[in-house]
Order: sequence, then structure tokens, then C-alpha cells
Amino acid sequence: MTQAPSDTLSRRHGAIRRQLAARELDALVVTSLPNVFYLTNFTGSAAIVVLTADDLFFVTDFRYVAALERTRGTASQCPGLELVRVDRSYDEALAFLLAGVSQGRVGFEAAHLTVARHQWLGSALARGGSGVSLVPTDGVVEQARVRKDPFEIATLREAAARLSAVATHMLQDVQRGRTEREVAWAIEARLRDAGFEKPAFDTIVASGPNAALPHAQPGERRLTEGDLVVLDFGGVYASYCVDLTRTVSIGAPAPRARDVYAAVLEAHDQAIAAVGPGRSRFDIDAAARDTLGRHGLAEVFGHGTGHGLGIEVHEEPRIARRRTETAGSATDGGSRLEQDNADERVAVGMVFTIEPGAYIPGWGGVRIEDDVLVTDDGVDVLTNVTTELIER
Amino acid sequence: MTQAPSDTLSRRHGAIRRQLAARELDALVVTSLPNVFYLTNFTGSAAIVVLTADDLFFVTDFRYVAALERTRGTASQCPGLELVRVDRSYDEALAFLLAGVSQGRVGFEAAHLTVARHQWLGSALARGGSGVSLVPTDGVVEQARVRKDPFEIATLREAAARLSAVATHMLQDVQRGRTEREVAWAIEARLRDAGFEKPAFDTIVASGPNAALPHAQPGERRLTEGDLVVLDFGGVYASYCVDLTRTVSIGAPAPRARDVYAAVLEAHDQAIAAVGPGRSRFDIDAAARDTLGRHGLAEVFGHGTGHGLGIEVHEEPRIARRRTETAGSATDGGSRLEQDNADERVAVGMVFTIEPGAYIPGWGGVRIEDDVLVTDDGVDVLTNVTTELIER
Repeated sequence: MTQAPSDTLSRRHGAIRRQLAARELDALVVTSLPNVFYLTNFTGSAAIVVLTADDLFFVTDFRYVAALERTRGTASQCPGLELVRVDRSYDEALAFLLAGVSQGRVGFEAAHLTVARHQWLGSALARGGSGVSLVPTDGVVEQARVRKDPFEIATLREAAARLSAVATHMLQDVQRGRTEREVAWAIEARLRDAGFEKPAFDTIVASGPNAALPHAQPGERRLTEGDLVVLDFGGVYASYCVDLTRTVSIGAPAPRARDVYAAVLEAHDQAIAAVGPGRSRFDIDAAARDTLGRHGLAEVFGHGTGHGLGIEVHEEPRIARRRTETAGSATDGGSRLEQDNADERVAVGMVFTIEPGAYIPGWGGVRIEDDVLVTDDGVDVLTNVTTELIER
Repeated sequence: MTQAPSDTLSRRHGAIRRQLAARELDALVVTSLPNVFYLTNFTGSAAIVVLTADDLFFVTDFRYVAALERTRGTASQCPGLELVRVDRSYDEALAFLLAGVSQGRVGFEAAHLTVARHQWLGSALARGGSGVSLVPTDGVVEQARVRKDPFEIATLREAAARLSAVATHMLQDVQRGRTEREVAWAIEARLRDAGFEKPAFDTIVASGPNAALPHAQPGERRLTEGDLVVLDFGGVYASYCVDLTRTVSIGAPAPRARDVYAAVLEAHDQAIAAVGPGRSRFDIDAAARDTLGRHGLAEVFGHGTGHGLGIEVHEEPRIARRRTETAGSATDGGSRLEQDNADERVAVGMVFTIEPGAYIPGWGGVRIEDDVLVTDDGVDVLTNVTTELIER
């Protein structure tokens, strides 16, 4: 089973339909592809779902019609799916469909529809004399996705086990003299061999002073005696993302390297110890941040302690400082200035990273990252790789 | 030189500034990352550019500040860049910046800003008492990108040569008994070895009946005697995308396979022969489509003949049928219903694919794809791989 079974999809549809009813919407237009996948198991690159109280309309073009037909009758087929084939354009097909399913309120995903498409759709509906009014919604499907269902947990657990095996191998395989880029390629090749569909993001191999950049791009620098090397990589397995970081020492680490590493590891352990159902995500962040602060490293930990994992490699919940979260990112369209308190507490079934780091300009950096699941009992660390400072 | 030199960036800024003046805009907010890259050489994952008549403000967060500092004084540094560091959120930083640079009309990219962010920005500017009005614009930077400048042409030429070497090798390396997925991985490993940063899209290896799906995902099917196998892959080299397809036969092709292949190759050759400055992109498409029609294959060629290449793997110009183009895609936010005649003619410096195909349900398919540059003299085929039907 590499895709969610039909009855799991049915439960997901039910959860969204309850939101439709609560918001007095006739339908929700789902244009976010990760959300489309969550509701249908569709892995292609273009489709729109229109979910109503009774129907699930699936709008796609000729490229995917045959692939979709193949899922009919399988254990993971999308229940109740009604195919709407696009002939001329997605937006035209969508406008035509909406005019048929509603004379009233239709929700759309405000974070996943551009101003240009919204204007076009609104004009087309008005021109057609439709009574449809487009109502912005915020994260209806994303909220359902935050707590993973049993199928998702099993998938993420398997993905994390496979990623751990890759990491364990790579900790032994890193060698002085190889370039960052060579190591990054070796990681990605091993991800493939381990059954991942692709890397979950551009692999980071940052050595020596480059490790002071949290998002360094692997380059031609060769791993050199005395370097700390940050290896941060992830994979997509059965469409789910996992993410892991370890930092290794080339040769015996200098005292400062040992100290910084020990402080980051302590922050990592303290943050994991702070995870459990009902715990505040701000407090989990503070557990890491305060620990680094006691070691004089608070100022060089410039990012959040963690992020949710699932169909996307960065999802809710954000394990970060209260009131200093990013209101809108440059590219993903998120625009909530601050999540309210209802979102503060983590809950059973959430999966996220714990990844404190320290980045010292001109010197280098350390990051240690694992993936955790919130359980009834507290926390289950899904990744399983030594956190000792490995010397190579 | 792997990035555009500073004077090239200056020329690009000048072209956009002329558009600002023509549209009576005080500034343009550039939120599309490919457009940000085009204007600045920035390759990170989050930044916003605000271009005014005199300034280029570059909004980014701590992760990229150090990387940006490193480009100072290099031959490819972005001229006139003024760094605006994000502390709390991109949208907050942007609202604050805009209130400082204008009391009037500020353009934004309607195809690259979500409804949610647009609403937030508009409200924040109003709350702050700013006189800024946000004006939707459509493809200002994209229009500049359609005709490649000499730096871009040199980069795409090099990328196409490297991709051709990968393809030539792979045509010899395909073997019966290997799975589609194994072949796809071998292609991607070779892309890395050839100097590509990453695949330009998910590699397609579609064998036998799977080749009837233009966007098949590589699976566990083994290449089998009698198969036609479509290999469609691309790479990102120095941030520019190239794309190539060949179809190979496992064992001696059956007469029908030979016939379909010959028809697609004829369509490919006719389309390339139709390329030249001032030629209609609809006519280029028709050259392929009409050829396939003469062979009774018009109905099984369900996509356009080609697409532009550059910083993105699908850009303008679209080489497709007149009046049946996609008005809005599901994901990229394009919403122009139909491009007007001003966009019809291809021009010197445009780079696009020519990739006719035939997809016969239950039987299989053929696609042959090359990348071409429009020159003063007509056309230059940048990719260079045999188009004979290779038997393996």
C-alpha cells in the first residue's frame, strides 16, 4: 500500500465537508496541489478539486485522464470522484462547473489562488450571470492535514526509517578531500537507492565557514581537516517528506567545535523533551532557544526550532518564537500575521522537525535535526541516527 | 562566468524601468522568484525585489544576507542593490518599504501574488495611512525574459550541448530488463555528472503502453522486447533549463512503430523548418500538427508543439494551436485567456522546444524533442542528438 486507502480518503472528505457546512459554503475550490493529493491520491502536476456536500468534481486535462482511469477499482481509488475534462482551459472549465453547482457561496483557497486568476474567475462568473460569490478561505484543508491519520503516520514512519539508514551510511561515507557537491550527489543517489522518489529539497552540504549559512548551496569547496560539515537532506517517500540533519567533524574537533556541538545537542534534546500532547509550540521552541542562550549562542540561532512534515516539507505546526513568526513568506503565499492561541498547542498525530543550530559568521556552524511524532504518551522520535559527534 | 555580468543586469533593470515609466508606476514589486533571479542573480528561496526609477530594493531574511554580501565586488554583483533585511515578516517589511518609496501607484505581479497576501498588503498600507495604491500588472518581467540576451544564449547553448551528451550516452545505455525507474535514475545521475545542478523536471521514462501517457511517472515496468520507450528529461545548468526527448525501440521495431516514429520525426522536422524571425508560433505548431494529420495521427497529438525555455522550464512563447491554448493552468497562475496578435510572432533570441508526439491508448507512443534558438538567419537547433530510431 503506497497510497491512502479509499476509506481514508472518505474520512478526509467528511472532515472538509463539515467545514463547508460550518462556513455555509456550497463548495470549496481546491487549487493547492498538495491539498488535491490529500483528497484524491492524485500525483500529477495539474488538477483542481471542487468539493460539495455530495460530490467531488475532479478537473484535469487529457494528460491525466488515462492515468486516473487506471485507479478505478483499486483499493486507493478516490471515492465519488466525478471527472471533469479540461478542453480549453482550467479556469474556463472551473467557471462552467461552479455555475452549475452553486448559485451562492463558493469558497476558494486565498493562499493558493493568484490575484490574476481570482479576477478572471470573478469576471467570468459575473459575465455568465451566475449567482456564485467567491468567498476567501484560509487553510481549510491544511488544518485537516496538521494531525496525521494512521495511514500517514505509517508512511512517515517508514520514510523516517529509510532516511535514517541513508544518514547512518553517509556519516561513514563522508571523506576529507571530497567536494561539498560530490557529497551532496552521493546523498541524493543513496536516497534513490533507499526508495525515495526524489529529494524533498535541495540537499545541503556546508563545510567549514560555509556551515555558518543555514541554507548554503553545495559548492566546490573540499572537506578539510578541522571542518565541521552540516549535512541536511530529505526525501519524498510515497509522496510524504522527511528531513534530517547531522553535523560531522573532519578530523578531531577543536575544543570550540566540541562546545558548540554539545550546546546544540543539549538544545535538541531539551526541545524533544518538551514535546507532548497539549504542549505549547512556543515552549518547545523556547526549550531549545533558552538552552542555547545559557551557552551564549542565542544570537546565532536565527531560525525556528522546527516545522511540520507531511505532503509538504514545510507545513504546520511551526515550532518557533511567539510573535516573531514570519507573517508572509516571499513565495508560499502564507499571510497570517500571527496564529491565534487555538493553534498554539501541539496534538497527537502531529509530525514535525526539531532542528536547533548555531551559525557563527566566519567560523562555521552546527545543526542537529530529527523528526518527531506527538503521541498519547508524549513523543516518538521517528528518525534514528546517532547524535554523537562523528569524526571522519 | 556562471552568472550574468553586472552590466547585463543593468540592461535588464533599464528595460523594466522603461515599463514602469510607460505604465506610470512609481515601483514594481517582484515576488516571482524566477523574475527576482533575472534581475539580481539571486538563487535563494525567498526574496522580493522592489524596483523604482532610481533604486533596486532587495528584501530578504537573515539566511541570505551573508550569501548576498559575498557577491559584493564580484563581476556578477547586482548593481545598485539596497538590502532590506526582514526581521518579522516579508509582508510587513514590504509594506513598510512601499510606504517609504511611493505615495501613489505601485505595480505588483498579479500572476504571482495570492489573494491572501494582496488583501493583507492592501489592508496594511491603508492602516498605515499610506497613499500607495496597488496596481495589478501582467508579465512585465516575463515579457523582457522572452528574448534571451547574449549571456543567456551562451548559457543555454552550453546547457544544450551538455544535455545532448547525456542523451547520446543514454541512447546506448538503455537495456531491456531494466525498470523504467532504474533508467530514470541513471539519467539523473548522468545529468549530475554532466554538471547540471538538478533535473529540470521529473524525468520521464515511459515504456510500451505507458508511453501512451505523455506525462507518465517511471515505474517498476521492465523494458521489454517490442517496446517503444520515451525518454524525456531536462537539466538546470547555471540556473537555466533545457529539455530533450528521444524514443528508442527495444529490439527491432514493428512496422507500425516505424510508421508512427517516421510520422512524428517528419512533424518535428517540418516544425523546425517553420521556425524563423517573424514566423507565427501558431504556424509552427500547424506545421507539426498538419504533418501528423496527413498520417492520421492528429487526434493522438494532444499537446502543444513546444514551450519556451529559460529560467523556467515552461515559459513563453507557447508553440500551440491558435485559440485553443490553456487560459489558466491549475498551478502556475497564468490567466490570460488568449494572447493577442502582438505575441504571435517569434523573434530573434527566443529559445523553445519542438516536441511533437503521438500517443495511442493501449499501444504506446512516440515523442521527439529538441531545443531551438531563433536567429537572424532562421533557426539554430541547440540540441544535437541523432533522430534515427535507435534499436537496443
